[in-house]
Amino acid sequence: MPFKHVALLGLGLIASSIALTLRKNNPSIKINGFSRSESTRNKAREIGFCQVFDSVSSCVDGTDLVIMCVPVGAMKDTMKMAAPHLAQGVVVTDVGSVKSNVIKAIKPLIPKDVSFVPAHPIAGTENSGPEAGFAELFVDRWCILTPTPQTPIEATRKVKKFWQSLGAQVQEMDANHHDLVLSVTSHAPHLIAFTMVGVADEFSKVTKSEVINYSAAGFRDFTRLAASDPIMWRDIFINNKEASLEILGRFTEELFSLQGAIRRQDGEFLQKYFERTRKVRRNIIEAGQDTSEPDFGRKSG
Amino acid sequence: MPFKHVALLGLGLIASSIALTLRKNNPSIKINGFSRSESTRNKAREIGFCQVFDSVSSCVDGTDLVIMCVPVGAMKDTMKMAAPHLAQGVVVTDVGSVKSNVIKAIKPLIPKDVSFVPAHPIAGTENSGPEAGFAELFVDRWCILTPTPQTPIEATRKVKKFWQSLGAQVQEMDANHHDLVLSVTSHAPHLIAFTMVGVADEFSKVTKSEVINYSAAGFRDFTRLAASDPIMWRDIFINNKEASLEILGRFTEELFSLQGAIRRQDGEFLQKYFERTRKVRRNIIEAGQDTSEPDFGRKSG
Repeated sequence: MPFKHVALLGLGLIASSIALTLRKNNPSIKINGFSRSESTRNKAREIGFCQVFDSVSSCVDGTDLVIMCVPVGAMKDTMKMAAPHLAQGVVVTDVGSVKSNVIKAIKPLIPKDVSFVPAHPIAGTENSGPEAGFAELFVDRWCILTPTPQTPIEATRKVKKFWQSLGAQVQEMDANHHDLVLSVTSHAPHLIAFTMVGVADEFSKVTKSEVINYSAAGFRDFTRLAASDPIMWRDIFINNKEASLEILGRFTEELFSLQGAIRRQDGEFLQKYFERTRKVRRNIIEAGQDTSEPDFGRKSG
Repeated sequence: MPFKHVALLGLGLIASSIALTLRKNNPSIKINGFSRSESTRNKAREIGFCQVFDSVSSCVDGTDLVIMCVPVGAMKDTMKMAAPHLAQGVVVTDVGSVKSNVIKAIKPLIPKDVSFVPAHPIAGTENSGPEAGFAELFVDRWCILTPTPQTPIEATRKVKKFWQSLGAQVQEMDANHHDLVLSVTSHAPHLIAFTMVGVADEFSKVTKSEVINYSAAGFRDFTRLAASDPIMWRDIFINNKEASLEILGRFTEELFSLQGAIRRQDGEFLQKYFERTRKVRRNIIEAGQDTSEPDFGRKSG
């Protein structure tokens, strides 16, 4: 573990999971935390996973790793508050789901002699807030680092070790490529889930409880994604606009071709398509990224 | 339990789950089974959840309840084979995910003095085949009955009792209304999941394993639905064409409005939309139709 004293700016699901994992795997590390919201600070104090400060400046004081755990849209303002108080040699990293725009927002504010290693742990649940964290969140999940040309190799190496110590596998990637890949694996699926749940919600005004009662037939799987933090997702789509629109455009084209097959009753086209998509799940399970238990291992009843 | 001897025509996930539940809850009931596929019959014999017959006629002989458990597109041919062998007083039901077209296909073939109670248990997993069944599949799930004007009330009452004995809650509904409601809660979500997985699969040809490795960020939730039985789903979309296209049309309109909000960077619109969809999940969990465990209670690692 290359760090001794960590500052968490933002105290949501990711920050609290980082703290709880550090507590478990590296109990000697000191952990400071800050949130703009007083109620979040109070909750974090109750849970007690870190020492909570009322200002960014006191939170970062004396730390050697500063992790930006705020929504993507709040990164710039938070870094403005932190920058004047960062000591020489400090490493700054973040957990934002979008990388190009976060780099654009933060990098110009980073003081000389401070390193910035943009990062994105690919982990989360539908719950948010300091009470949502748990120590196993990052185990066997991936963390992507997108160092800039100015990021010292040594700082990247240390942040890599840090994430490995939390149980994650680490991969380096270009920031723009990250934003496109995540748009496929995360941003577009979330927007589509939000949309489908919105459609069903409209419809349920007519059919009352039926949409809820019969949700086990497929719809409920979408609701988990569509229950994710609204502010976090607002910021993601606004800050990854181009890649999101690109993938949603491809999705619409593909949806139209399947709608066409339904319209002309083309069973062969549909069956072949569905046989292809069935195989993708097998690959995900083999890669250790999902459970093979039927129905996600949901308990009945 | 109003029946003594049940025939299962088709031996997939639903049929094997019915048999295993009957074995557990009502061990005195005799269970016959038939599948057109020899390998399915052999698998069912190995597992041993019912007495397997090589012909429809011998399978239905002596039974008082015949359950059609074949894909929607195979209902008509299967009923053609069964009809001449159905004794007076037998009750016929089915488990098809589409009701109007199944009624159109089967009802004209039903002999006089035989009752037909169309049914749809809202339960399933992404796995298919006789080895996929389990005795808890229907517990606390819903089963919808869509009796026709010719269905005797007594037959409907008996099929209702039958499904309640398997652990399900039963609701009666008009067949057309069923097809529209299921199109929202099941058919459209599946088509959208198939589409998103298809898009990602195309994309993954460029980025190799990245789509698989980073699937935990959202995409993998879609792959469970998109791994469902291709033939079953081909038949559903072809047999519920109008309702599917209606709901997919609404979905596309809604998706375009969200894409527009991303394009014009309308954060307020996005946040409000996402706050609304977040509440829907809470309703589903309160209705007992999903787990409140984060991440569906998936085990990490």
